Amino acid sequence: MSVQFERVALIGIGLIGSSLAHVMRREKIAAHITGYAKSEETRKSAVQLGLVDSIHATAASAVRDADLVILCVPVGACGAIAKEMGAVLKPGCIVTDVGSVKAAVVRDVAPHLPAGVNFVPGHPIAGTEQSGPASGFADLFLKRWCILTPLPGSDAVAVMRLEKFWHSCGSYVDQMTPEHHDLVLAITSHLPHLIAYNTVATAADLEEVTDSEVIKYSAGGFRDFTRIAASDPTMWRDVFLNNREAVLEMLGRFSEDLSALQRAIRWGDGETLFNLFTRAREVRRNIIAAGQETAAPDFGRDPKHR
Amino acid sequence: MSVQFERVALIGIGLIGSSLAHVMRREKIAAHITGYAKSEETRKSAVQLGLVDSIHATAASAVRDADLVILCVPVGACGAIAKEMGAVLKPGCIVTDVGSVKAAVVRDVAPHLPAGVNFVPGHPIAGTEQSGPASGFADLFLKRWCILTPLPGSDAVAVMRLEKFWHSCGSYVDQMTPEHHDLVLAITSHLPHLIAYNTVATAADLEEVTDSEVIKYSAGGFRDFTRIAASDPTMWRDVFLNNREAVLEMLGRFSEDLSALQRAIRWGDGETLFNLFTRAREVRRNIIAAGQETAAPDFGRDPKHR
Repeated sequence: MSVQFERVALIGIGLIGSSLAHVMRREKIAAHITGYAKSEETRKSAVQLGLVDSIHATAASAVRDADLVILCVPVGACGAIAKEMGAVLKPGCIVTDVGSVKAAVVRDVAPHLPAGVNFVPGHPIAGTEQSGPASGFADLFLKRWCILTPLPGSDAVAVMRLEKFWHSCGSYVDQMTPEHHDLVLAITSHLPHLIAYNTVATAADLEEVTDSEVIKYSAGGFRDFTRIAASDPTMWRDVFLNNREAVLEMLGRFSEDLSALQRAIRWGDGETLFNLFTRAREVRRNIIAAGQETAAPDFGRDPKHR
Repeated sequence: MSVQFERVALIGIGLIGSSLAHVMRREKIAAHITGYAKSEETRKSAVQLGLVDSIHATAASAVRDADLVILCVPVGACGAIAKEMGAVLKPGCIVTDVGSVKAAVVRDVAPHLPAGVNFVPGHPIAGTEQSGPASGFADLFLKRWCILTPLPGSDAVAVMRLEKFWHSCGSYVDQMTPEHHDLVLAITSHLPHLIAYNTVATAADLEEVTDSEVIKYSAGGFRDFTRIAASDPTMWRDVFLNNREAVLEMLGRFSEDLSALQRAIRWGDGETLFNLFTRAREVRRNIIAAGQETAAPDFGRDPKHR
C-alpha cells in the first residue's frame, strides 16, 4: 500500500480512533498521524501505545496542515470541535467523522467549515462494547460496512479518496443520504441499544428477584443483552439526543408490536407466537449468510463461558 | 465416575436431551440409555449419532424399568407424556425434567405419577440457539447452574441423587420453589427472548428500511438480538403460554421503564439517559466476574465476524 494521506488528524482517540490508528499504521495509509484527546490521560496513553506521531491538547493544533481530519468524538461534541478548528483547516483538506448519527452532525459541523474544505460524513458500522485508547485493534473494520453520506456539494474526488481509505481498512463502502442513514441505524443499532439498556435496568430494579440471581442465571438469555448495554454511556446519550425523531419512530413501532405479543400471551394465542418466532429464525440465517455474524453456537463463546 | 443409574430414559432428544446423552456417556453416569422422540427422523438420528442404547416410538415403552426418567420435551408436551407413562413407571424411579417453566410442569405432570415415584422438577440454565439431536455436546452444562424445585413431599435421597447427577454433568446446583423459579427466569430468560423476537419482527416489517439493509448493518447491535431469536419456536411458544403471569408482570415493568426512557429522549433529558447507561455497565462486569460470561470483546466472536 502506498501512503494515501501525508498527515491525518485523529480528533478523539477512543475505540474507533485507536483502531483507525492501528490499521493506518499496518497498511501505511498515513505518513504522519496527529492526535487530539480531551483528557490528559488519553493523550498520554495514545503516545505510550504508539498510536500517534504527535499529540495535541487542542483540536485546532492537531488539524494544522492535515490532509485528512477524522472526528472520532461523541456526536454531541462535533459542533464545538468544528467551530474551534474551522479557521485553521488547510484548503483542500478532507474532513470526515465516524458518528452513529449523520443529519445532526451535518447540521452541527458544516456551518463551521470554510469553502475549499471537503466535508464527507461517514460511519463505520463496527465496534465492541469496550472503549478508550487501549481498546482498539487493526481488524475492527474488517468485512464491516462503512456508510458515507456525501452532501449535495461534496467533491467527487474527496469521496473517492475516502472510499479508498475505508477499503484499505478492510471495509465495504456504501453511500446514502444522512436522513436515510439515521433511519437505518435507528433500527439496526439505536433501538437495540436502548432496549438492551432498558432490559438491564428493569432487571436491576426488581424486588422479588435479587441482583445475584439475575447474574447467576443470566445464561438463559439476559447476558446477551448486557454486551451492548456495556457500551460507552456518553456516546450513546449523544446518539439518542441527536437521532430523536427516528428513534422515537422505531420505538413507537416496537411498542405497538410488543403490545400485540403481550395480548397473544394474555389470551393464550400460541399460533401468533409460533408464527412470529418462526420468522425470526430466518433473519439470523440471512445475517450469517451475509458474513456479518458467526454461525458458531453462542457466538462462538469460549466453552467455559457458554 | 461410577454408574449412578442403571437405566436412564431420555424423553425427547433435542439440544438438551442429546447433550445429556453425550455427558452421560463421557462420565459413565448411566449403564443403559433409552430414548423416545416423537418424530421418526429424530429417532433415526439418535441411533446414528450413538446417543441411545435403545430407541422407542412411545414414551411408555422408553421408560419401562428406567431408574431415572428425564423429560426433555417442550413444557406444553409434559402433561400428555406423564399421562401416557405414569402407569408403567418402575416404583422408586426418579422423574425429572429440564423445562424452562416449573409451576406449570408440576401442575401438568404430578397428578399422573403414582405414589412411590419420585418427581423432582429441574431446569439447567444452559443452551444455545441451535436445536435438534445433532446440536448437543457434552460441555453444554459445564459451569452453568441447574435449578431444582423439589416439591413438599419430595424424597430427600432422590433430590440428592439428582444433585449428584447434575454435578457430574459439570453444573452447579441450586434449589428454590417452582414459583420463585418462574419469576427469576421470567426476567433472566423469558423477557429477553420475547424482546429479541419482537425487535427482529419490528425490523422485518419496516417499509422505509429494507431487509437487506437490516442484514448488512446488523453489526451495529441488532445481530446480538438475533441469536436468542433463532431459538426453537415450539419450545418458546410453550414457555410463554405456561409462564403467563410472571412474563406479563415483567413485561409491564419493562414497558413502564421504556416509557420513561422514551420521555427522556423526547425531552432531551441527557442526564437521565447517561445515569441509566452508566449503571448498566456494572451488571455486565458482575456477570463476567461470576464466570457466566466471557470478557472477550464481542463475545469473543471470530475476528472475521466481528
